[in-house]
This record gives sequence, structure tokens and C-alpha cells, in this order.
Amino acid sequence: MTTTAIIVAAGSGSRFKSDTPKQFLEINGKPVIVHTIERFQSAPSVDSIVIVLAADQTLDTSEFPKVLKEVTGGATRAESVRNGFEAAEGADIVAVHDGARPLVTVDEIERTIAKAKETGAACLVAPVTDTIKSIRGDEIADTLDRAKLRRALTPQAFRSEVLRRAFDGIDLTESVTDECFLVEKLGHPIAIVEGSSRNIKITHPEDLVLAEALLSAETRY
Amino acid sequence: MTTTAIIVAAGSGSRFKSDTPKQFLEINGKPVIVHTIERFQSAPSVDSIVIVLAADQTLDTSEFPKVLKEVTGGATRAESVRNGFEAAEGADIVAVHDGARPLVTVDEIERTIAKAKETGAACLVAPVTDTIKSIRGDEIADTLDRAKLRRALTPQAFRSEVLRRAFDGIDLTESVTDECFLVEKLGHPIAIVEGSSRNIKITHPEDLVLAEALLSAETRY
Repeated sequence: MTTTAIIVAAGSGSRFKSDTPKQFLEINGKPVIVHTIERFQSAPSVDSIVIVLAADQTLDTSEFPKVLKEVTGGATRAESVRNGFEAAEGADIVAVHDGARPLVTVDEIERTIAKAKETGAACLVAPVTDTIKSIRGDEIADTLDRAKLRRALTPQAFRSEVLRRAFDGIDLTESVTDECFLVEKLGHPIAIVEGSSRNIKITHPEDLVLAEALLSAETRY
Repeated sequence: MTTTAIIVAAGSGSRFKSDTPKQFLEINGKPVIVHTIERFQSAPSVDSIVIVLAADQTLDTSEFPKVLKEVTGGATRAESVRNGFEAAEGADIVAVHDGARPLVTVDEIERTIAKAKETGAACLVAPVTDTIKSIRGDEIADTLDRAKLRRALTPQAFRSEVLRRAFDGIDLTESVTDECFLVEKLGHPIAIVEGSSRNIKITHPEDLVLAEALLSAETRY
């Protein structure tokens, strides 16, 4: 079975009040997105990589032989992933990943893809460490049982035909936080793959500082 | 109405693999707990402060005139808070705070205490930024609606008689993640007070790095 990773790096830099999109800011001298691609390049199960970029972005990927194509993102996350998915035609498995998550490990990538091969759909998750309350209006309604909750990370990997069905007929202009949500709506079971909280998404400026600290503490990925 | 802040700093350093408990590790040249006390010392609504420390810990609080007492923590968080609460006798309002949350702002402290004066119980919360899934066994069960979830932070403030009733008859050896949970069990409504995600709890070594970055970016607290 062939596997294509779809790395989505089409977001804007709006939360950074910066002209540089967050994926292109540098950690330890290299853009975030380059750290991310390195990990998928190093993952044995990944045969090829499709990068989804904003229309005005370019990226030199000549050092990454697995990078098959760069495609242009859409107006929404779902549209960007769909564009990447079209470019991954022929792959048996696709693994969708946020370009702004440079700290994913090769082991996490491998386990997520292996689980998707086995079950059809797999989601990398991390424990919920905070106490989570449900609210009703301006009051606390309940304390949720953390043991039964997980934070959805990426990669999220699927048999292509499963993701194809999930995309069929959805409104791509709607806000979709993750691809698993689409597959959940199909009713297809999604296996969870336990991952690490270190796999943060670079969203705010302070996340860059944290990512630098985490990268420096890594011995290998 | 008089208000006492109970700052709980009795935890161990187990997650740091360090002999120094996390509250005593330094950020920008000062122990975490000292940063935390500074903020309560600066909050106009706080009349006095009780610090709960582990039996083998000492802390020089001579520069903080509001610090009324240092008391020794118990075997569990609930026991530690209860010990602090006994020492806060006479206060109309108590505000319980994690010593390992040095980034709380004076404004957050003030708003939480004001809300507890008004309603009897108030909890500082932050938005949930991750996609949260509920799980069933090894599979995803559902995607929760983030808009209806909050992360419970501290301070959590209560009219003393409300917290008194919440402590009455509970098993202090049980694991209690936060005091609001006890008050929820009473059936007393708890108002939420929207706070910032910057108010992190120092739990892992990399949190110290993040806290340093956040502190350096602050212009005032």
C-alpha cells in the first residue's frame, strides 16, 4: 500500500500580527514547515509528500526527494486539504498533517499510518491535562472525565476511499476543525493513536519559544 | 467583605525528576512561587494571603506584608486546601490559587473575587483551543463543541460558607482536581470568569521556558 502525506501550510499569519505566515517563521534557523517536512521525509512508511501552500507562497523543497507536488490551498482548511487530496491521487493511504506542527515524531507518524492501514481511519491524540468544564450560559454545568477525552492532533490518516466518501457532498466553505470530524459524520470508526503533548501547533508567538525549547531537548526524532 | 487568598504550593517535583519542587524553580531569577505571591500582593481586593507549603519547605515572605500565615499541606490537594482554609478563618471570601500559576494577572484575580462576592462561587477559565474528542475504548466517539467547554484555571473564589459546606463530609483522601468540583457536587451555581491561556500551570520542565517567554513579553501585570 502506498502512502502520501498531505502537509497543509496554507494558513495566514493573522494571529502573529506578522506578514510572515506562522509556518514560515524560523525555529533554530529553519522555517517551521521545513522542520515538519523533515520528519515526514524520514518516516519509512511515507512514500510521497504533497505540500499545500497559500497562493502567494513558494518553498524550495529540492532537498526533500519525497515531495511530489506543491499545490495551492483554498479559502478554508477543508478546501486546502481537498486540493492536497486531489494531488495525492493513486495513494492507498493519505496522512493529513498541520504544517505548523513541527514536533511530531517519526514514531508517531509510523504508528498512525500503520493503524489507518489496519482500520481505515486513525487519529493521533494526546491526553487532556487540564480540568475541563462544560458550561451553560455563564455558569459551570459539569466537570468532564478527562480519562474519556483526548486532544486531536495530526497526522490523521485514512484509507483514500474513506476520505473520498467523507469529502463527497460536504460543504467545503464550512468550518471544519479536522478531517476526523468528516469521517465521524460518515459513521466510519476512527482508531485513536496515543501521542505526545509535545506535538504542539505553532499558533501564537510564544509557541515558537516553546518549540525551540522542545526541539533543543530532543535527542532524536 | 474581607478576602483571603490561599496559595497552594505543597506539591512535589516528581514530574521534573528534580529534588526542587516546581514552585521553587526559578524564572527570571526568582522562584515561581514568589512571582505568584507578588500578583496577589498587588491585587487590591486581597486583604491577606495564606501560603500552603510542604512540611520540609520554607519560604521568606518578609517582603509581602499581606502574607498572614504559612501552613503545612496534607497528603492530597484537597487536604492542603482545607488546611489553608482553616488558617483563613474569618475571611468572607477565599480565593484558592495554584502556586505553580505565576502568570495570573491582577485583573483576573480582581474579576474572580468580584464575581464570587456577587454570586458565591466563581472560577477563572480559559477557552479550549484544541479539538476535543470523546473516546469509547480505542475509538473516537464524538467531537465536542469547544464553544461549550472551558479549561478550569485558578483562582477559584468562594464565599467561605460555600466552601465550608463543600468540604463538609467529603473524603479528603480522594483525588480532587479543583475546588469547583466540590462546589458543583453541592449543587451551588459557579459563575465563570473568562481569563487568558497565558495563565499556565508550571508542570513540565518546558513550561518554565514558556513562562520565561511569557513574563518577558508582559508589560505589566
